[in-house]
Amino acid sequence: MTDHQATYQRLCDQFQEATMLGTIQQLLEWDERTKMPPAGGAYRADQAAYLAGIIHQQKTAPVVDEWLQELAESPLAADPHSDTGTVIRQLRRDYDKKTKLPKSLVEELTRTAVEGQQVWSEARAADDFAKFQPILEKTVELKRQEAAALGFDITPYDPLLDDYEPGESTANVARVLGELRDALVPLVEAIADSSQRPDVSIVSREFPIEVQKTFGAQVVAAIGFDLEAGRIDETDHPFMVGLGPGDVRLTTRFDEHNFCDGLFSTMHEAGHGIYDQGLPREFYGLPTGEDVSMAIHESQSRMWENQVGRSHAFWEHFYGRAQKAFPGALADVEMRDFYGAINDVRPSLIRVDADEVTYNLHVLIRFELEQALIENDLQVADLPAAWNEKYRDCLGIDPPNDADGVLQDVHWSAGLFGYFPTYALGNLYSAQFFAQAAEDLGDLDAQFRRGEFAPLREWLRANIHTHGRRYSAAELVERVTSKPLSHKPLIDHLTQKYGEIYGL
Amino acid sequence: MTDHQATYQRLCDQFQEATMLGTIQQLLEWDERTKMPPAGGAYRADQAAYLAGIIHQQKTAPVVDEWLQELAESPLAADPHSDTGTVIRQLRRDYDKKTKLPKSLVEELTRTAVEGQQVWSEARAADDFAKFQPILEKTVELKRQEAAALGFDITPYDPLLDDYEPGESTANVARVLGELRDALVPLVEAIADSSQRPDVSIVSREFPIEVQKTFGAQVVAAIGFDLEAGRIDETDHPFMVGLGPGDVRLTTRFDEHNFCDGLFSTMHEAGHGIYDQGLPREFYGLPTGEDVSMAIHESQSRMWENQVGRSHAFWEHFYGRAQKAFPGALADVEMRDFYGAINDVRPSLIRVDADEVTYNLHVLIRFELEQALIENDLQVADLPAAWNEKYRDCLGIDPPNDADGVLQDVHWSAGLFGYFPTYALGNLYSAQFFAQAAEDLGDLDAQFRRGEFAPLREWLRANIHTHGRRYSAAELVERVTSKPLSHKPLIDHLTQKYGEIYGL
Repeated sequence: MTDHQATYQRLCDQFQEATMLGTIQQLLEWDERTKMPPAGGAYRADQAAYLAGIIHQQKTAPVVDEWLQELAESPLAADPHSDTGTVIRQLRRDYDKKTKLPKSLVEELTRTAVEGQQVWSEARAADDFAKFQPILEKTVELKRQEAAALGFDITPYDPLLDDYEPGESTANVARVLGELRDALVPLVEAIADSSQRPDVSIVSREFPIEVQKTFGAQVVAAIGFDLEAGRIDETDHPFMVGLGPGDVRLTTRFDEHNFCDGLFSTMHEAGHGIYDQGLPREFYGLPTGEDVSMAIHESQSRMWENQVGRSHAFWEHFYGRAQKAFPGALADVEMRDFYGAINDVRPSLIRVDADEVTYNLHVLIRFELEQALIENDLQVADLPAAWNEKYRDCLGIDPPNDADGVLQDVHWSAGLFGYFPTYALGNLYSAQFFAQAAEDLGDLDAQFRRGEFAPLREWLRANIHTHGRRYSAAELVERVTSKPLSHKPLIDHLTQKYGEIYGL
Repeated sequence: MTDHQATYQRLCDQFQEATMLGTIQQLLEWDERTKMPPAGGAYRADQAAYLAGIIHQQKTAPVVDEWLQELAESPLAADPHSDTGTVIRQLRRDYDKKTKLPKSLVEELTRTAVEGQQVWSEARAADDFAKFQPILEKTVELKRQEAAALGFDITPYDPLLDDYEPGESTANVARVLGELRDALVPLVEAIADSSQRPDVSIVSREFPIEVQKTFGAQVVAAIGFDLEAGRIDETDHPFMVGLGPGDVRLTTRFDEHNFCDGLFSTMHEAGHGIYDQGLPREFYGLPTGEDVSMAIHESQSRMWENQVGRSHAFWEHFYGRAQKAFPGALADVEMRDFYGAINDVRPSLIRVDADEVTYNLHVLIRFELEQALIENDLQVADLPAAWNEKYRDCLGIDPPNDADGVLQDVHWSAGLFGYFPTYALGNLYSAQFFAQAAEDLGDLDAQFRRGEFAPLREWLRANIHTHGRRYSAAELVERVTSKPLSHKPLIDHLTQKYGEIYGL
């Protein structure tokens, strides 16, 4: 082994050890959100904070800087997309981001996020934005300080966005989401004007929860989430978490009178889980074995949830099974009516309940508002009015109060600025990848009709999962589809699908 | 703060941090045994080993030795049973034990235990003691080396026993268990000769598992296990684990055709859990907040399982509820017959299935055999014959094969020598404490009949739990009952109870 190889090995060992502690931390959180008894909370917070401290030390130790400096000059870094080049380049990037922030600022951000979520929760319950305003002002100010410490050329929103979409620029996101909005708003209006309206009461009938669980697990297994290397539990706010190679956990929730929420939450998280299970195990704990970005992760969950799970072909395979599982609710329902009910589109107040089409407008509104807050073009005091105006303009909705308006999401209270756009970017990547998969694999609908999901899943493995964090999201989409990210594939998909459903 | 106080604080911080990691390790194990998907095993083992390494470093750091040396001379150590004196004395004890063993021996013991369990499992499945013999010989030899490294005056079994019963001596255990045997054997014979035999088929009827779960949780809550600060899950081999103050988890198992196994396993683990929940929280992670020994822990589980759960008074309160919960199995069964069925006594082959009376003889046999192995008075090659002879002598049972004879328990394969006697000691402590509680609290039966378990529980809190590891087991029993440990209270309890049932 050369000296460089020995250094490289030490670097990998250190980060794979940090990942080992990181996955343990994830288990603490999974357990907290699914199993832990109420009185266990205080000690659990201590445990998590203690582990976080050790992990931070491991990742930001000065010796890491020395190793990375040595390796940057070595042949191992020559090809930035090789196994070793990827690791060296991405760990350098992470190290610089982690060490640029003064400790006092990190602590202040953490403290404010904890307090912010608490205040937000009370303010939301009381429908009282004024109560939330001071801590949100403080949060915005701290995020601006964070951006300044991280450095930027064009806008302070850039380094914040970069936390979730490494290498992405605000300008590019604004361009592509702007184009998306311009195409979406008329589509939403056309659907709203359509005289064809599905009977959505079908999916609010009685769907026994135990049966929903069994049915959900069957669907998830059919699309290729490996339950020998994962499991499904219930929680309040569904999430997916990887606890190790061979241990990927989905969480979901069920409501006896909401068939869609349970099934599509489960499929969504399974999409995240299939990505995690598809990452190369030999690189577990290194950038070559990690996901690309939030938007790429979301592209995987959205694809299985929407492009697959809400497609006509999928239900041509599964609807008979659903009728057998839920005879009380579905025996007398035609497939055509069921398909309409699960694809109901209508402008609504709450992001998390929104349909596949209008969802993106909710995200756009938040992206524009948070960008303005961070760039100091909008004051926190003026946020509720700005929010309401955008909901009227984009969705034709008048929020009846702040609780279900500007206070509906937790993100800002937790200091998560730059996160929202990844939801819409995920939908765009999803549609663009899916269109390419259809081109490469032939008639996907015919495959879904036969219950064959392995070709799509293997295509995603080979084209996306297997690369880990070797390419940025922008590089990856170019590599896979030979085009930069565009709003067109999503608009094409939505226009065609909902054109048929609503007779446009 | 004096210098000594500052040192003491550092010592406490270090051990409370080690406990924080220790409880995280416990969560890893709980999860592995109750939730983890099969493919997660390999990485989980890596995570656990990595944490174990960090914890070992924290507990055996040379600075700990320095702190303890300084504190031993300080006023903080003057009273060995004060808060600070207990911590200093017990941490010194633990430190010396942990640092006396050479690293190579510890590693060899660990490796051999892992291999031993694997070989044992195969040998048991094949009913082939010869296959197990070589690794058991190696294990015994390593345990003898361990005893030599730890040091002893009288027998190498002493330092091994001390791992589970700190401060206890082989001679004393041999004395008290010998007296127990001498009194038990005639009792077992008298019961076997009785013409009164309960109809045990009652408790093998159909008891739906979901109802068993609900009923078990109700019982556990009634006796005072706090489910807001704990939970119950299913596993293969039931256990209890404390994951933090406010998070104590029981695991149990259910068999549709074995009412006793499910309920009494649950009550047994709840007894352990009530002890854990009763330890003083302000000392969490320090000896003053820890349990005394394996036998004292077992005394708590056995008390709730046997003295309470198998008592007539307990069922005077619960039997009507059980009949309502399991009408199919119990509606036509008289309380008297049910009580007989759950208290069936008969010599049997398998320790873990044994009743309250004969159980102790199974343990005695193992204690005598493992002592002889460690003292080199018995060769591993001669173990099966010695085993079978003792089963004939003590229980009148002829083991039909080694799989259900000498190979039935995992303990020796895992290097656990000195562990078995704690099961019987636990029964003795349990009976002696219970007799004292009855003396202090008046008519316990009348309380149980009214469903009142709080007085007993609070008595255990005040007399046992609250002291943490301030007193040794021997000191504690003297303190609480004003007598040294004796076989008499258990024999009195068994003679009276089974005399009535079997008309002796």
